[in-house]
Amino acid sequence: MAFPKKKLQGLVAATITPMTENGEINFPVIGQYVDYLVKEQGVKNIFVNGTTGEGLSLSISERRQVAEEWVRQGKNKLDQVVIHVGALNLKESQELAQHAAEIGADGIAVIAPFFFKSQNKVRAEELLDGIQDKIPSFQGLKFSDTDLLDFGQCVDQNHQRQFALLFGVDEQLLSALVLGATGAVGSTYNYLGKKTNQMLEAFEQKDLASALSYQFRIQRFINYVIKLGFGVSQTKAIMTLVSGIPMGPPRLPLQKATQEFTANAEAKLKSLNFLSFPGLKDGNMEACS
Amino acid sequence: MAFPKKKLQGLVAATITPMTENGEINFPVIGQYVDYLVKEQGVKNIFVNGTTGEGLSLSISERRQVAEEWVRQGKNKLDQVVIHVGALNLKESQELAQHAAEIGADGIAVIAPFFFKSQNKVRAEELLDGIQDKIPSFQGLKFSDTDLLDFGQCVDQNHQRQFALLFGVDEQLLSALVLGATGAVGSTYNYLGKKTNQMLEAFEQKDLASALSYQFRIQRFINYVIKLGFGVSQTKAIMTLVSGIPMGPPRLPLQKATQEFTANAEAKLKSLNFLSFPGLKDGNMEACS
Amino acid sequence: MAFPKKKLQGLVAATITPMTENGEINFPVIGQYVDYLVKEQGVKNIFVNGTTGEGLSLSISERRQVAEEWVRQGKNKLDQVVIHVGALNLKESQELAQHAAEIGADGIAVIAPFFFKSQNKVRAEELLDGIQDKIPSFQGLKFSDTDLLDFGQCVDQNHQRQFALLFGVDEQLLSALVLGATGAVGSTYNYLGKKTNQMLEAFEQKDLASALSYQFRIQRFINYVIKLGFGVSQTKAIMTLVSGIPMGPPRLPLQKATQEFTANAEAKLKSLNFLSFPGLKDGNMEACS
Amino acid sequence: MAFPKKKLQGLVAATITPMTENGEINFPVIGQYVDYLVKEQGVKNIFVNGTTGEGLSLSISERRQVAEEWVRQGKNKLDQVVIHVGALNLKESQELAQHAAEIGADGIAVIAPFFFKSQNKVRAEELLDGIQDKIPSFQGLKFSDTDLLDFGQCVDQNHQRQFALLFGVDEQLLSALVLGATGAVGSTYNYLGKKTNQMLEAFEQKDLASALSYQFRIQRFINYVIKLGFGVSQTKAIMTLVSGIPMGPPRLPLQKATQEFTANAEAKLKSLNFLSFPGLKDGNMEACS
Repeated sequence: MAFPKKKLQGLVAATITPMTENGEINFPVIGQYVDYLVKEQGVKNIFVNGTTGEGLSLSISERRQVAEEWVRQGKNKLDQVVIHVGALNLKESQELAQHAAEIGADGIAVIAPFFFKSQNKVRAEELLDGIQDKIPSFQGLKFSDTDLLDFGQCVDQNHQRQFALLFGVDEQLLSALVLGATGAVGSTYNYLGKKTNQMLEAFEQKDLASALSYQFRIQRFINYVIKLGFGVSQTKAIMTLVSGIPMGPPRLPLQKATQEFTANAEAKLKSLNFLSFPGLKDGNMEACS
Repeated sequence: MAFPKKKLQGLVAATITPMTENGEINFPVIGQYVDYLVKEQGVKNIFVNGTTGEGLSLSISERRQVAEEWVRQGKNKLDQVVIHVGALNLKESQELAQHAAEIGADGIAVIAPFFFKSQNKVRAEELLDGIQDKIPSFQGLKFSDTDLLDFGQCVDQNHQRQFALLFGVDEQLLSALVLGATGAVGSTYNYLGKKTNQMLEAFEQKDLASALSYQFRIQRFINYVIKLGFGVSQTKAIMTLVSGIPMGPPRLPLQKATQEFTANAEAKLKSLNFLSFPGLKDGNMEACS
Repeated sequence: MAFPKKKLQGLVAATITPMTENGEINFPVIGQYVDYLVKEQGVKNIFVNGTTGEGLSLSISERRQVAEEWVRQGKNKLDQVVIHVGALNLKESQELAQHAAEIGADGIAVIAPFFFKSQNKVRAEELLDGIQDKIPSFQGLKFSDTDLLDFGQCVDQNHQRQFALLFGVDEQLLSALVLGATGAVGSTYNYLGKKTNQMLEAFEQKDLASALSYQFRIQRFINYVIKLGFGVSQTKAIMTLVSGIPMGPPRLPLQKATQEFTANAEAKLKSLNFLSFPGLKDGNMEACS
Repeated sequence: MAFPKKKLQGLVAATITPMTENGEINFPVIGQYVDYLVKEQGVKNIFVNGTTGEGLSLSISERRQVAEEWVRQGKNKLDQVVIHVGALNLKESQELAQHAAEIGADGIAVIAPFFFKSQNKVRAEELLDGIQDKIPSFQGLKFSDTDLLDFGQCVDQNHQRQFALLFGVDEQLLSALVLGATGAVGSTYNYLGKKTNQMLEAFEQKDLASALSYQFRIQRFINYVIKLGFGVSQTKAIMTLVSGIPMGPPRLPLQKATQEFTANAEAKLKSLNFLSFPGLKDGNMEACS
């Protein structure tokens, strides 16, 4: 596998795996999905077969096919396609990693063990220390905890910027940017990528007031849906709503989002101007509720 | 699949998957393992490919082979061979269930979802209520929590004794027996089956003092190893020690038990007369430490 | 203080502190409360100013007065009056202990530190080991966890029966009796003491079927109210209902139980024959729901 | 009580309660402590009798005396003296609040109930909504969680800046500043106030690189001591070391910090230039470990 020459940076959408109503993978819409991310959301990096993509609910054969389709459709359009290859069984994980290399993916990612697992919290900053001696191809990590002491100390240690330190708690991204996050991986970048990119640009230009204003609007939405119950099923429903591309139902054990959820999420998106409609100026701030 | 005509009752050993030093499955020792359980431990039911058997660290192909070997070796020797078929991916779980039926396993078992999972604690007594309407072949459950209110209410509800209610916290079995547990599934029955059967018999005869004495000796051992760090790796080491059958190392992410652990466990087993040696009477009680 | 010559055994009611509607302590009903416990529930030991008694919501002065009144009213009627003297501030705790000795209480009890506290779970069996060297007057413990390995190892260690090992999870008492609990402390013994005593007697006579039948009926009630939300406020409402003695509202931060809760609890108590009415035979079992 | 006319802002030191070796309060050093905070650390607001001050381990009488002494010594030197008046018993809390008003404290603070407490996580942003209808004198909150979605939504809601929103996780302060925190309450501002003020100034001037550099140095220290075990006892030892003012031992149930801890903390402070010594330039950065 050719390891990425340029660092992974900016927003990385944790892709949904689109499914048909009967639960099979809906391969034909993936091309359209790529175009949507690039053109409508300004997101050019993807993280395939992760939690959002229900990767662990797919068979090995399905995971290979999904990875292939994203790589094929993303060619010359996306900057980096990262394939999540974690599995409970190490051999399957190795097989998926080998396959990702063969199809020309830009990188792989692996979840930490979650069935047989460490009793103690493992600190990322301790893992990073000397990791390239153990994993010469190590490129970076996705940090999805709210312990910003740990994240900060990862950045502190990474002063030569050898690693990509991507933050994974979408609703708190600004707090990680100020600590030096080099990018972010998340499910909301599928449909809030454009708004989040505007936050990134404002931060880059040290316009902290604008950056905070974007962060608060994003927080209002996420805060709202968290209270309704927010997971992969709900992400599928929201993405279908915002992009117009049918994402379909999730696989068991997940249950399809309720119509009530979708109606409430839609109303909230509208009130925040997160759905585009003719005649509405996109930049309007929601009056504070 | 022919569903069991007689209820699953008594002790069920959660079998270890024996491995060679290089991590491959050591099929040839399974026959010897069956004989050991039946003859030395008096255990005639097994639970294959569960947590203790590292079922989720095996590939689907390996799980099928392991199930086949236990069924083949157990024929005419074991009462019931239950195959754990749980997987993150529902299709693989269905494939394993179909396979278990084809090879003539006596039953299957499935772990509750553990990656995408319910936010709230699910009470077993609520699940049991009306379950045969949803799963006509439902036979019972393995209850591995210390919430004996929930377990008790399962038994209370099961007054027609239609289900097997098996307890899964080995070190607290006596407390579940008094609530009406119909059996037990656990890893310690691999090597403490005989002692535990003696406890069951004493309880059956209402000799509560003897039953308690057995329970306390078993607790002393488990309490001791829990403090040292007790999991599947350690179970493999103890079983190798007690049975003389090589169980081998665990697969990653588990790490082999340390020699220090094994030496300490051995000393404790000896002090409790849980290792058989000529010249020592088996029934001697350990002096209270 | 004269330490108890006989061991504390059997049921110990964790007493409620009766209050008037405006939140002051309702001292005049305490005498009636003592008679109710002894005559109607057959409970002759009490645990005063504990969690159920809102001890930590009372001022030091109030705690002293409450203790005095229970000791006075219990004279020649109760076997043992134990005063909980735990406080966040060690000096106040010492003052309360001194006071308990002066008024002739039979014993004191102290909660483990809960504001500044140990990071690790402290095992009771490790605390017991050698405790009389540190606390010569140590008499026993109230164990209110569901870890019956730990509780069992306390009993195992207590083979000379020097300590009272009282179990504090009312709905699982039978499981602790079989492990050798010497008694029980709980809030439900205020109104289910008679039923629980019947369970104790059945267990004593090795009539395990009857003991289990009592345990299941008690579990049905507790299981039901737990689902409705069960705490000190609800205990006050239930005790008012069952005993006819007004327990009044709780103090803030607790909120009074809702009328809906009380109505539901009453209906459940009736369906289980836990409220005495003329013309209903007390021993009738509830049909299994 | 005269409520503060100007908002509480900037750093607020959660004061230690100095004690003598035999555990009595060391009142005479409080004047010196005030001078140290103002002159050496640039900290002019204090939070008295909180967790760091072992407020809940003091008697009511002691809490009154401690509050009086800080108010007296702080007169014309400190901007705001806030007295923590939380207690398990509401009457005592009211008495302390009344007393704080009488002695001329600038404000009071109250911990959320922690013995009888809510089962569900309470979101601060929900509490803030409409709070002045219930508590007309409400001035703000100390937010000591890492859930920056909740904190952000508090700030978002507080667009009229009517409340002080103080952050309480010292090692993550920069991440809260970018979200609009108006100040911070913490124990480390006793001895790292000057460094933290430098971070605040850099942030104010949009010099994010410098602010981050300060944050990382502070994180290195806190990260280091957390791994050694960091609490009130250790804070007393560090403050004694850095300020030269004897803070004494903590009260039970806390145990005095070990000499090994103190030696290690001292070495770390030196390596970070957090102890002032002649001949060392204060601004030198630690080489990255």
